[in-house]
Amino acid sequence: MANQAPDNLSPQEDRTGLVMLYTGQGKGKTTAALGAVFRAWGWDWRLCVIQFIKCPSDDRGEVRAAQRLGIEWHALGDGFTWASEDLEATAARARDTWRLAQEKIESGAYDLVVLDEMTYAFTNGWLDLDGVLEWLDRHRPRHTSLIVTGRNAPEGLVEFADLVTDMVNVKHPFGQGLAGRRGIEF
Amino acid sequence: MANQAPDNLSPQEDRTGLVMLYTGQGKGKTTAALGAVFRAWGWDWRLCVIQFIKCPSDDRGEVRAAQRLGIEWHALGDGFTWASEDLEATAARARDTWRLAQEKIESGAYDLVVLDEMTYAFTNGWLDLDGVLEWLDRHRPRHTSLIVTGRNAPEGLVEFADLVTDMVNVKHPFGQGLAGRRGIEF
Repeated sequence: MANQAPDNLSPQEDRTGLVMLYTGQGKGKTTAALGAVFRAWGWDWRLCVIQFIKCPSDDRGEVRAAQRLGIEWHALGDGFTWASEDLEATAARARDTWRLAQEKIESGAYDLVVLDEMTYAFTNGWLDLDGVLEWLDRHRPRHTSLIVTGRNAPEGLVEFADLVTDMVNVKHPFGQGLAGRRGIEF
Repeated sequence: MANQAPDNLSPQEDRTGLVMLYTGQGKGKTTAALGAVFRAWGWDWRLCVIQFIKCPSDDRGEVRAAQRLGIEWHALGDGFTWASEDLEATAARARDTWRLAQEKIESGAYDLVVLDEMTYAFTNGWLDLDGVLEWLDRHRPRHTSLIVTGRNAPEGLVEFADLVTDMVNVKHPFGQGLAGRRGIEF
């Protein structure tokens, strides 16, 4: 059983990568993915973070941290979808981001690939869920774990994932649309 | 308003530290706290992680990462509470851990202090919730943010916190009591 793999094996040896999904309306989805990166970095896992929505130009603590640590990081979005002025360009960008993710996953060169805010590519119709899951079924190396984040994960993705946490917002100091604070939100 | 503080200020300048609470049965609570540490480290925040339950002897990825990065880390527990053979010693340990946390918080020397799995100290009766909250109200410097994690956060703590996420377990590959996997669970 995958969950009884000896804990002294590297991902390449135990070959039981998991697909993890952090969804829901509450704060903590991307933050938990970052925590998983932090933990796995402590074990020298080979890491790749791919962000579907966040812009490359944003100055964020996690990007600064990743740069210092030499963690591979691709922020390929154009900001939040509701701010997009050219939806076709945004959709094309999401498809390009998925093509990069495919290349990284298929390469077998990573133990953990984070697909941050990927759910929005499904909910906005930029990517076909069935096509993505079928591709992952065939091409994801068994040692490569994935973390997918984003609100409103489609049911098929929940079924596909091995671990799913729904982050429920109980209390949040920032209203939607208001900027968050440095060090806390970005 | 705290949530409109200019984002180019350091925690010492904007003095609007938040109290954040990650609770619930699902995976992601401690992981999100680690992600917050990762992000804040990218902004050179002064960090302190205090763990109420985890043992100092456990070999964990997050501890390895923190050691490499020079992040202050105190794991002062004796393992999960249900494994404790001497409940009075466990309770005394939790009170010692809180005393250390008080010292660190009160010092003003940190921008973020993580109180990992502290909720168990309340649910097990090792610490008095009202006393802790009253102390925090008086002694927490305004620039110092806190993150508290753990299941079953008491109602008073939820009210006290500025941000609360309830992590709901939708699907989890490890049954309770089964060991998790290196790089994923620890």
